[in-house]
Amino acid sequence: MAAGWRGQRPSFICVLGHTDVCLVPGISSAGVSEELRPLTPAADAEVVVLGRPLCLSDLPSNPTGAPGPSGIARAALRMAGIEARFVGAGLRVWPGVACEEVPVDASLFERGVALGREIEAPYVVLAESVPGGTTTALALLLALGYAADGRVSGSMPGNAHSLKTQVAHERLRDAGLRVGEGRTDPLGAARLVGDPMQPLVAGIACGAAAAGCDVLLAGGSQMVAVAALLVWIAGVASLQHVAIGTTRWVVDDPSADVSGLTTEVSPDLPLLAVNLDFSCSRHAALQSYEAYLVKEGVGAGGACIAALLATGQTLQALQAEIDQTYDSLLGRLTAQ
Amino acid sequence: MAAGWRGQRPSFICVLGHTDVCLVPGISSAGVSEELRPLTPAADAEVVVLGRPLCLSDLPSNPTGAPGPSGIARAALRMAGIEARFVGAGLRVWPGVACEEVPVDASLFERGVALGREIEAPYVVLAESVPGGTTTALALLLALGYAADGRVSGSMPGNAHSLKTQVAHERLRDAGLRVGEGRTDPLGAARLVGDPMQPLVAGIACGAAAAGCDVLLAGGSQMVAVAALLVWIAGVASLQHVAIGTTRWVVDDPSADVSGLTTEVSPDLPLLAVNLDFSCSRHAALQSYEAYLVKEGVGAGGACIAALLATGQTLQALQAEIDQTYDSLLGRLTAQ
Repeated sequence: MAAGWRGQRPSFICVLGHTDVCLVPGISSAGVSEELRPLTPAADAEVVVLGRPLCLSDLPSNPTGAPGPSGIARAALRMAGIEARFVGAGLRVWPGVACEEVPVDASLFERGVALGREIEAPYVVLAESVPGGTTTALALLLALGYAADGRVSGSMPGNAHSLKTQVAHERLRDAGLRVGEGRTDPLGAARLVGDPMQPLVAGIACGAAAAGCDVLLAGGSQMVAVAALLVWIAGVASLQHVAIGTTRWVVDDPSADVSGLTTEVSPDLPLLAVNLDFSCSRHAALQSYEAYLVKEGVGAGGACIAALLATGQTLQALQAEIDQTYDSLLGRLTAQ
Repeated sequence: MAAGWRGQRPSFICVLGHTDVCLVPGISSAGVSEELRPLTPAADAEVVVLGRPLCLSDLPSNPTGAPGPSGIARAALRMAGIEARFVGAGLRVWPGVACEEVPVDASLFERGVALGREIEAPYVVLAESVPGGTTTALALLLALGYAADGRVSGSMPGNAHSLKTQVAHERLRDAGLRVGEGRTDPLGAARLVGDPMQPLVAGIACGAAAAGCDVLLAGGSQMVAVAALLVWIAGVASLQHVAIGTTRWVVDDPSADVSGLTTEVSPDLPLLAVNLDFSCSRHAALQSYEAYLVKEGVGAGGACIAALLATGQTLQALQAEIDQTYDSLLGRLTAQ
């Protein structure tokens, strides 16, 4: 499938979402603090489009100082001349750039199908920015019967597994669901224990694939959860034109098992990873990606895969673009 | 696929639905008059379960006297020991037998998926009773870009094509949709110009097929519209475990083209037809089926196919059961 994407320019849609899971202290490192975390999706969109956040003074960053991945997505999309489109569901803070609002109700999947059908491109890259989203991914995977505890990735060192497990199982308990019981109503389970990005992206993927448009789910654990949702809504056949695209850090993450989970969702689901290496980045902050911080988000991995396929450029050229993008993003940060 | 159904007992779910299209004079002959037409789905369910209607004094019948098809479904299901389950959406009148109520909103597809996932049977027969439903089928087919004018079947002689075409195109106009424009939002199109049975049955089919359960869409034009909806939601691959099952009268109807429409929806979609022949029925009223009146409804054709496959009985035996069932149904009618 991906071989056919060479020289093609895909559509890129990033779904911005919010659940109150991101307010749990320590659950995520998207955003310097719990207070600022609900601003992350809006700031991510602003960084991708404008090269700087409007709603925050700084790039959304890890409390450890590792910068957020929106600059990677920006660099990759600009290199390939791909425009980013944003769709928001349930946001606390809306971006200062164009973003379609989708209401958070039982029509998320349906609206996704409609969005997906409109796409006029050989393939579409579907990205997300949902703070706390690996926890809602874990909750959905559990509801769908996957033994995902301790196996989802995340932005923090060690991935905060015990906290995520606690929060995810609490969500299942509150919904009156035991592990696997979400299989009888997968979209209902996503609504109860997951996040609005999941049914929306599942719908877009369905609609796009039905219209003959291939789909690259750009993300790690969160997109594995979306793929699992698709399987339980419409069967494995619905993944026929779908792949997951992420970064090497997600796939190699020693404290996660995204590739194992992907195989459990479907042994035929391609998991692509861009081989980014920031160990020689001129930004010390970006080098922390090599310590498995941040790793992914805003479709960074998928955007890089798309950019490399579209332009035929080398990984080195892409990494130079990324370094340059972070010059201004981090310059701005240090200038304050 | 159907070969594997031999000796198997399927689930049978009949979706009862209502739209105000059935109030248009002359649009349907399900029910003796416009006033009684909204009672037809409830009476159909009562006939299938109890062998007599509760909400009407008589079997829902064609104004010409041709009796409704609920007795065929009842006879077939009883012969095979298959229980009927009813789900209602938007009914004006609810049956006096067990019937789950599903609200008519954007969650119809989602609820269908949940219903479909629960099915524990080798396959499921999905039936409908929606008065005026071939007109809403036509409207949905048009919205999805199929040239269906003059090609849907119906319960009346000649199928009232010009009236159906007028009403269906009016629905598209009122929804601001031109022919084919529903493709960008198939579920939205069903909501705007179709009927609640369509997204609900599409969801059940999706969920059932995803759970490894084959699907027999039991009906003519209305189920072709559901199959088309599935294609535009989730691609042709979503029909992999789906077939349409109807009666010979629908397939042979000289004033319709259900088999051509089926091929246009997908050349690989099996269209099965039970070879019922009422020309020697002891009920003159049933003989009018041979003049292409009524023809189908309440999953009559699919129920017969399922009964023949499950029991290995002959068509003659099934027709004898049908005759016997109508003894009491029509006896009741003439006794008054």
